[in-house]
Amino acid sequence: MTDSSISSITRRQFISIAAAATAAAALPAGDFALGQSSTDAVPQAASSHAGLDPDWTDAGIIATRNSPYAKLKSVPVRAVTITPGFWSKRRQTNVESSIPSMRVELIDHGRMDNFLRLEGKSAAPQRGPVYSDSDIYKWVEAVGFALQSGPLPELRAPTEEMIRQVVAAQEPSGYLNTYYVESRQSDRMLAKTQTTGHELYCIGHLLQGGIAYYRATGDPTLLDAGVRFVDNFLLPGYGPAANQGPIVAGHPEIEMSLIELYRTTGNKRYLDLAGYILQGDPRIPLLERQIVYMFCGVPFTSRTKLEGHAVRAMYACCGATDYYLETGDPAYWKTLNRLWDDLSEHQLYVTGGVGARSDGEAFGNAYELPNERAYGESCAAIGNMMWNWRMLSASGEAKFTDVMERALYNGINSGMSLDGKLYCYRNPLAYDPSSGDKIRNPWYDTTCCPPNLERTFASLPGYFYSTSPEGVYVHFYDNSEMHWQLENGAKLTLTQTTQYPWEGTVHLAVTPASPEEFTLFVRIPGWSKRNTVKVNGREVAGIMPGQYLPLKRKWSAGDAVELTFDMEPQALHANLAVTDDRGRIAFQRGPIVYCMEQLDQAVAATDTEGFPRYTAQLAGTKATPYQPALLEGVVVLEHPGAWLPPEQSALYQAALPSRQAAHETTLRLIPYYAWSNRQPSAMQVWIPYRQA
Amino acid sequence: MTDSSISSITRRQFISIAAAATAAAALPAGDFALGQSSTDAVPQAASSHAGLDPDWTDAGIIATRNSPYAKLKSVPVRAVTITPGFWSKRRQTNVESSIPSMRVELIDHGRMDNFLRLEGKSAAPQRGPVYSDSDIYKWVEAVGFALQSGPLPELRAPTEEMIRQVVAAQEPSGYLNTYYVESRQSDRMLAKTQTTGHELYCIGHLLQGGIAYYRATGDPTLLDAGVRFVDNFLLPGYGPAANQGPIVAGHPEIEMSLIELYRTTGNKRYLDLAGYILQGDPRIPLLERQIVYMFCGVPFTSRTKLEGHAVRAMYACCGATDYYLETGDPAYWKTLNRLWDDLSEHQLYVTGGVGARSDGEAFGNAYELPNERAYGESCAAIGNMMWNWRMLSASGEAKFTDVMERALYNGINSGMSLDGKLYCYRNPLAYDPSSGDKIRNPWYDTTCCPPNLERTFASLPGYFYSTSPEGVYVHFYDNSEMHWQLENGAKLTLTQTTQYPWEGTVHLAVTPASPEEFTLFVRIPGWSKRNTVKVNGREVAGIMPGQYLPLKRKWSAGDAVELTFDMEPQALHANLAVTDDRGRIAFQRGPIVYCMEQLDQAVAATDTEGFPRYTAQLAGTKATPYQPALLEGVVVLEHPGAWLPPEQSALYQAALPSRQAAHETTLRLIPYYAWSNRQPSAMQVWIPYRQA
Repeated sequence: MTDSSISSITRRQFISIAAAATAAAALPAGDFALGQSSTDAVPQAASSHAGLDPDWTDAGIIATRNSPYAKLKSVPVRAVTITPGFWSKRRQTNVESSIPSMRVELIDHGRMDNFLRLEGKSAAPQRGPVYSDSDIYKWVEAVGFALQSGPLPELRAPTEEMIRQVVAAQEPSGYLNTYYVESRQSDRMLAKTQTTGHELYCIGHLLQGGIAYYRATGDPTLLDAGVRFVDNFLLPGYGPAANQGPIVAGHPEIEMSLIELYRTTGNKRYLDLAGYILQGDPRIPLLERQIVYMFCGVPFTSRTKLEGHAVRAMYACCGATDYYLETGDPAYWKTLNRLWDDLSEHQLYVTGGVGARSDGEAFGNAYELPNERAYGESCAAIGNMMWNWRMLSASGEAKFTDVMERALYNGINSGMSLDGKLYCYRNPLAYDPSSGDKIRNPWYDTTCCPPNLERTFASLPGYFYSTSPEGVYVHFYDNSEMHWQLENGAKLTLTQTTQYPWEGTVHLAVTPASPEEFTLFVRIPGWSKRNTVKVNGREVAGIMPGQYLPLKRKWSAGDAVELTFDMEPQALHANLAVTDDRGRIAFQRGPIVYCMEQLDQAVAATDTEGFPRYTAQLAGTKATPYQPALLEGVVVLEHPGAWLPPEQSALYQAALPSRQAAHETTLRLIPYYAWSNRQPSAMQVWIPYRQA
Repeated sequence: MTDSSISSITRRQFISIAAAATAAAALPAGDFALGQSSTDAVPQAASSHAGLDPDWTDAGIIATRNSPYAKLKSVPVRAVTITPGFWSKRRQTNVESSIPSMRVELIDHGRMDNFLRLEGKSAAPQRGPVYSDSDIYKWVEAVGFALQSGPLPELRAPTEEMIRQVVAAQEPSGYLNTYYVESRQSDRMLAKTQTTGHELYCIGHLLQGGIAYYRATGDPTLLDAGVRFVDNFLLPGYGPAANQGPIVAGHPEIEMSLIELYRTTGNKRYLDLAGYILQGDPRIPLLERQIVYMFCGVPFTSRTKLEGHAVRAMYACCGATDYYLETGDPAYWKTLNRLWDDLSEHQLYVTGGVGARSDGEAFGNAYELPNERAYGESCAAIGNMMWNWRMLSASGEAKFTDVMERALYNGINSGMSLDGKLYCYRNPLAYDPSSGDKIRNPWYDTTCCPPNLERTFASLPGYFYSTSPEGVYVHFYDNSEMHWQLENGAKLTLTQTTQYPWEGTVHLAVTPASPEEFTLFVRIPGWSKRNTVKVNGREVAGIMPGQYLPLKRKWSAGDAVELTFDMEPQALHANLAVTDDRGRIAFQRGPIVYCMEQLDQAVAATDTEGFPRYTAQLAGTKATPYQPALLEGVVVLEHPGAWLPPEQSALYQAALPSRQAAHETTLRLIPYYAWSNRQPSAMQVWIPYRQA
């Protein structure tokens, strides 16, 4: 492509840019800073754009407002302000350190040059793998979610420049992909390209990025480009009709983004195409191993277990749940629940990570959950959370929130270093520094995980609450304010005050604009066995762990709910079928899963491989007071254990291994998410136990 | 290459062919059938060939006769006849079924067309991976070893045709490789080709095949081609001198074959080149991961642990031990022992298999020995046996023979189906048929393992005995006759009569040609805790498991030794550091490791993944009488256990998993090597135990 592409910017595109400028100008600068409530400050502008949701400021992470089978409706990101506490620091780091530094990495690694070359503005050759465009789109999505929490002009200006550069590379046909150009142009949308080439995956991320940016700013420039790809290139060319070509997702992502586009525009053709892709196009013959690996290409409802590439499987489940939310197809719901049972019974790391095998970045067999070799890709844990969010929306069942919380606080949170500049691709549950593996890195050539983590932390406020016809659901606990409304339109403010996850008490101030009868559904975490809930000081009965407790009454300003969860440290045992965890325990307190790093132990007892040679008693864990200076503030667990001299017994012998002389010591454990933030040190989550 | 190559056959080659014809004619047909003693019948012909070992009929698997640091000297394959018993059936199947059917597979898959095309005799394009030539050479080596046990004209004629076709493809320069021709000719011996292209690996196998065939028949046709490659192409072009190019093995194999060529010709330049390759050529810069994966390219003596590609590592250790046997370099011996300790303490499956990871076909970390996911490539177990044979030759220590026996009876023997027509590439220690994995196959496009198994079974008689200045060593037990001589030249016959490995008694008739004082070193297996040894009915004291028992006396014809080993079934425990085997036991009786196949159990108790849900008591195993009709004749083990209803407990819980209601049953176990010879069935070696 040459300079002619620059002149291919359509009239509609110019209108979009103009609309965006208007929307930006309408934002009252300064009233919208991170950590401040902002709902009232958001302008209802830019809604006149053809086809796009006029209520763009009211859409949540997924816009389920009109989804007929969504039992719960999303609350907008901007309606919830996370105030100083556990997540605020993370989110500040995300916006101030991660997102800006990742922009530099993306540009330094040629991800924008790929677009600029096509506009005649760069002489650099194509760089990065086939899915490189998606890195930019996911990063823009992170900015989009961040802007939903407040104006960030220093981020917005360069992002809009990037969006302009992206859009300028779009061809008049609507096609947009910087890899399948020039000598590779003839490979576009071939069956083999669709299965491996990530063209639709990239467009899916473009759509998600464009939607998030539109919902933040009203600027549809990027979203318009996605619509042009879908309307002008994809819909006419691919689908079930005889004059259309066959279609397969290859890497699922397009399904959920087409459905979000349907929610944003009301154009049912997007939903129908997503459904067709989920059904699998029989005209693309696939090998059994492709069907397993790609988790697409055959009817989604024919799936009976999670398998293949973990991110693909999770994104496919997201798309299928979105499809259920819109259509209510009972076959989808049945399959989704079957797959979820497989997840929670066989495939879920205690950290909420999924995808055990590095080989194929894949799910293993049931109960195949190795620790040191765990893959647990950050993207897969995020996909897991995204899927469970959709399952929660469909059902209102707290078991899905439990999985989200497990993933969010542990296997997702571990994916970004405390300073926000290093990322995990793998999230193993044991680590041997002598292996030389570098777990945290500023850049990966396949850099899917870093912007995925960034968009997740940026979107976090949108996961805290939902509404239903009965009232409002409280999913997550942290200092925060929600300014939103019930489904009947009654305005409501909810204010949380808590030291969660370090302490178990949450104060919830319920402030309706005027007295109103509704149900406040407060989540009782599955891990919390003994709980008290008080409304205006009076204890409530019937509390069930792992369920939402319905508090139905006429609420008035000044009403107060106090929740107290069970923060006793727990020693967890895995199902005996998990061979890697046999005879071992893992520690959890509240939602936080712990691990042991060698450098925190009093005795440097390691065997030849660098792993701590410790054993733990079965019980006796104590939590220390909050330690503000350690790892940006954590509660440490101390547990009675012993260290062992180097293992002397033979590899195989005809007698039970002898009990070695053990030396008593106190094991010190830190939150798993904070591991590997100091010098390299052996780490393990599952610690062998010996009964006293 | 065109027809001109056909005319490039050198004068020397014609001489070789003529010499071969002479040798073949000299073989007294019919006196040399498999299963018959043959030493006296072997002609001492064809020894006039320039430079080649005149005592070609006396060389063993490795020709250590003149190796200054070989404490033990090999006994020729042809000096030992394995008579009907455990191995004879296997070897008969090998010669009658495996080797002939593999020839058809090789030809059907274009492996000979690759040569014929270069001679203008085939229009087929190149087929098979870069190392395809080696399949032919290893198959020829299998035939060469088979012919050392007797004439097999139906095998010999087609083999000589194949050898002629191979040699005819050799270029005048000596270069021979059917992959790096035509458009790929310019890639020959580039640094990147040496690291990945297997050129020297193929030549190494050509040399081993040529040597085995020469030692069988006196026909040096193939060997000559190897010598021409080395003399005319390799030695002048590659080595440390300024006018030579750099060299790296890429896949170790050339080292041990160059040293065997040195032993066969006396030309020390081959040994020196092997030493240079083992040292690593600093002019080829390698990435750390290449150094790990290839197990070559840096000084062998800098290695501290086994890592990387398992077959590469084992072959490198073979070459390094061969180098030690010729040079006595103490740094090599130190490294070899350190690596062997790593093998036996951390890396060895109970089956004798090595190489835990499918990813990179590689060694894992210490104690990383997964069962279902075990790679345990057949070639790696064979390489393990080959290396231990060399370590045994250097030291005379029985710990090496113990590892050989473990590998041979289990992890190697499992690699070929009982009918000899299917092969394992992987040898896992647990199997779930619902995985769909096909473990035994007639053909692999990377078909290294099948001919490797064939050459191993064909060479087996050569592993039974060694000599030392003190006398003779007995390594393996099976019905057999040795007709050989002490190192002082005194003729000696040893005859074994036994039901080993099913029963523990071995009768050894010692028949020197005339009364002679020497030491008979009989191996006491490491697994045999209680032993008796009688010489002419009188018990001997001082028996130590895992050592050679020296029986020094003046031996006369009619002397009889009776060995009785401990055939009590053993329940083995793995070191606690092997997480995959925690809380599990494996069963062994004599040298045979057992496994449990679902189809032998009275109760079809499986969980959702198809694995038997059984537990075993810690003790109480009983051996059944020999069952001739089952799996070509085996002893079955019966062990008290229980079956469990499907696992109901959660994936993670805060209490010890409850003991489920168990239903008593008797577990039936079969030898591991015989698994997967009936219908597909779940299998496991390591069975969870519960204490009574």
